[in-house]
Amino acid sequence: MVTNPGRESLSRPECIRLLGTSGIGRVGLSIGSLPVILPVNYVVDGARIVFRSGPGSKLDAALRGAVVCVEVDRVDERWRSGWSVLVTGEATEVPAELLGDGVASLLVPWSADAGDRYVGVAMALVSGRRVGPVLLTA
Amino acid sequence: MVTNPGRESLSRPECIRLLGTSGIGRVGLSIGSLPVILPVNYVVDGARIVFRSGPGSKLDAALRGAVVCVEVDRVDERWRSGWSVLVTGEATEVPAELLGDGVASLLVPWSADAGDRYVGVAMALVSGRRVGPVLLTA
Repeated sequence: MVTNPGRESLSRPECIRLLGTSGIGRVGLSIGSLPVILPVNYVVDGARIVFRSGPGSKLDAALRGAVVCVEVDRVDERWRSGWSVLVTGEATEVPAELLGDGVASLLVPWSADAGDRYVGVAMALVSGRRVGPVLLTA
Repeated sequence: MVTNPGRESLSRPECIRLLGTSGIGRVGLSIGSLPVILPVNYVVDGARIVFRSGPGSKLDAALRGAVVCVEVDRVDERWRSGWSVLVTGEATEVPAELLGDGVASLLVPWSADAGDRYVGVAMALVSGRRVGPVLLTA
């Protein structure tokens, strides 16, 4: 920590715990070779992250079996601290009947076209870090 | 709006105005063909978004002249509403002397290795949307 006193890498279990404390993430994928980030509300369902989707870029990517990432963070501007977790894995459509108990009811649509299909992102790669002055006093 | 009552596309001026109301964004880029999202604190500096960087993936991408995206959003989970703006453009290193007045002082490092170099993302493509019940009563 000598060269990097304000940053800490997080273990996979800690990352997965942190993913469970939020419900808003950002999905990163490529569309036409351009990087795109889309906010989603998500639920951790076993070994995958699930969000709702309708026809469009997110689902299209899913149906192509693309590798996407999901980033979740909590940032405190006042204290200049926070954490960020990044999950990378293949996106696939998940039939509603294969979702875990209660998952569908947690994924309430935010708009009329939010879609009634589900995309799962396998938690193949999970990494995270914590940044900020919190560490300096730990 | 018949088919999409809870979602509104935002104009470029409105997107740029919203970018000025936040200071935390997420940069999306590809590293080794995998999508990656990294949170950054940023400043709008003329026609580009600027953030601080040190040696590593963000700066490496910048030095390669890669096309990256920057996403900024504000989400209210309680009201299931929010907005999201996406900027896409080429990333380049910006010498400190070419930054706008006060920009460097606004980009306070959050950790000891935050870096003392600056990356600018040209606002070549700007899009945004507002989602949620706010619209339904507008």
